[in-house]
Amino acid sequence: MGSRPQTKGTKYGEISDDLRERIVSGEYPPGAQIPGEDDLMSEWGVARETARKALQVLRNEGLTEVHRGVGIFVRSFSRIRRDAVRRLSSEQWGGGRSIWDADVAERALDVEGVAVDEVKAPEDVARVLDLGPDAMVCRRSRRYVVDGTPVMTAVSYLPADIAAGTAIAEPDPGPGGIYARLADLGFAPAEFREEVVSRMPRPAEVESLRLDVGTPVITIARTAYAADGRAVEFNDMTLNAAAYVLDYRFSA
Amino acid sequence: MGSRPQTKGTKYGEISDDLRERIVSGEYPPGAQIPGEDDLMSEWGVARETARKALQVLRNEGLTEVHRGVGIFVRSFSRIRRDAVRRLSSEQWGGGRSIWDADVAERALDVEGVAVDEVKAPEDVARVLDLGPDAMVCRRSRRYVVDGTPVMTAVSYLPADIAAGTAIAEPDPGPGGIYARLADLGFAPAEFREEVVSRMPRPAEVESLRLDVGTPVITIARTAYAADGRAVEFNDMTLNAAAYVLDYRFSA
Repeated sequence: MGSRPQTKGTKYGEISDDLRERIVSGEYPPGAQIPGEDDLMSEWGVARETARKALQVLRNEGLTEVHRGVGIFVRSFSRIRRDAVRRLSSEQWGGGRSIWDADVAERALDVEGVAVDEVKAPEDVARVLDLGPDAMVCRRSRRYVVDGTPVMTAVSYLPADIAAGTAIAEPDPGPGGIYARLADLGFAPAEFREEVVSRMPRPAEVESLRLDVGTPVITIARTAYAADGRAVEFNDMTLNAAAYVLDYRFSA
Repeated sequence: MGSRPQTKGTKYGEISDDLRERIVSGEYPPGAQIPGEDDLMSEWGVARETARKALQVLRNEGLTEVHRGVGIFVRSFSRIRRDAVRRLSSEQWGGGRSIWDADVAERALDVEGVAVDEVKAPEDVARVLDLGPDAMVCRRSRRYVVDGTPVMTAVSYLPADIAAGTAIAEPDPGPGGIYARLADLGFAPAEFREEVVSRMPRPAEVESLRLDVGTPVITIARTAYAADGRAVEFNDMTLNAAAYVLDYRFSA
């Protein structure tokens, strides 16, 4: 609910509230240029520092983006609504669809840098997948780009005793992706757990997700469990926080 | 999985990887002081700027906190594991327990600044609760403090035609909280939806949650639906991102 002002009592808060209201109301639609520091200084009769702080508030909220040497614009990338339960439902992947169909529908999705290899399970992965100390895992890495914006990197780990030599170890695992292939092998995911954390990015993440200054990441550590309770996949995801609304629905 | 290095190839990345490993391994346990800029400069033979950047990486990850004039310490506040499905289960509030019991167990929880009033529904709230343009809502505001650290502010809105004049409009709504009271009134929550976004905080949020520099917030907009599909509560929450792991479990 980004439209309610919360910076009352300061001049820069008053200015950012005004600009926010004009963005939310559509007076400045997505992609529109908004007033810069000089404009705000003359319009409101304030010092540069005050104008700068007002603009920083909107940028921190992810409402605007700076095009260097050009100006400040209302962010035009509309957030991906990631409906966790629907996208991971067995109807989705069991029906041969990509779980990403549920997220991006008509938008342009590129999956870049798909790399698959077999490695000794990192300690934390071995713990989650309940593997012995020298167990091997099939590792799948990739980056997702929507409408030209990198939105997520993901690294999946699956026990090699399940995945090695199967379509899961191919760059393109086929219709319905790796969950459909796990089902083919008798390890259909029955339950999922997603552990969600938000923090500021590491330098390598700023680069791989081309993050704007002041944009956090969301990490999602997902474990997929087969019906017998065995953990069959661990997926370590890093999301551009400005690109997402995570949507979880559940019963009381 | 914060233990895997991702800043290879730079000197400050090498230093931050080393420090991270020593924190994760427990060589520097929670609350321990870690080397400062001067220590790193002499230990690694690097410039102040390099030492500063290495320390900033760990701070951005939420691993450390700065005590001004004293030094840098491993963050000692252990994240709250917020098990969304369990805490909101009807067994929890229907059994007369606070949903917060599921989050904090033995830890010290203070609920501060509880304020209840009746206001005209803000436009966005009216839309979610499917109310007419002049409808009134019961508004409940409060701040949650765990082990002395502010972890969340929350503002709940309930239709006044349900809540006005009931225990829901009292500062202490009684055992099981407002969900138990909604059940008493025939509006027991049956389904929940949580919409999760992360962004940098507004100035007022830095203050109310006493956020360290470089700490994002997570906002959760929760809607509770009765069995007939009516939206009976909207809760606008702002979380200290450094204080939380959100945990969602669901079926395929």
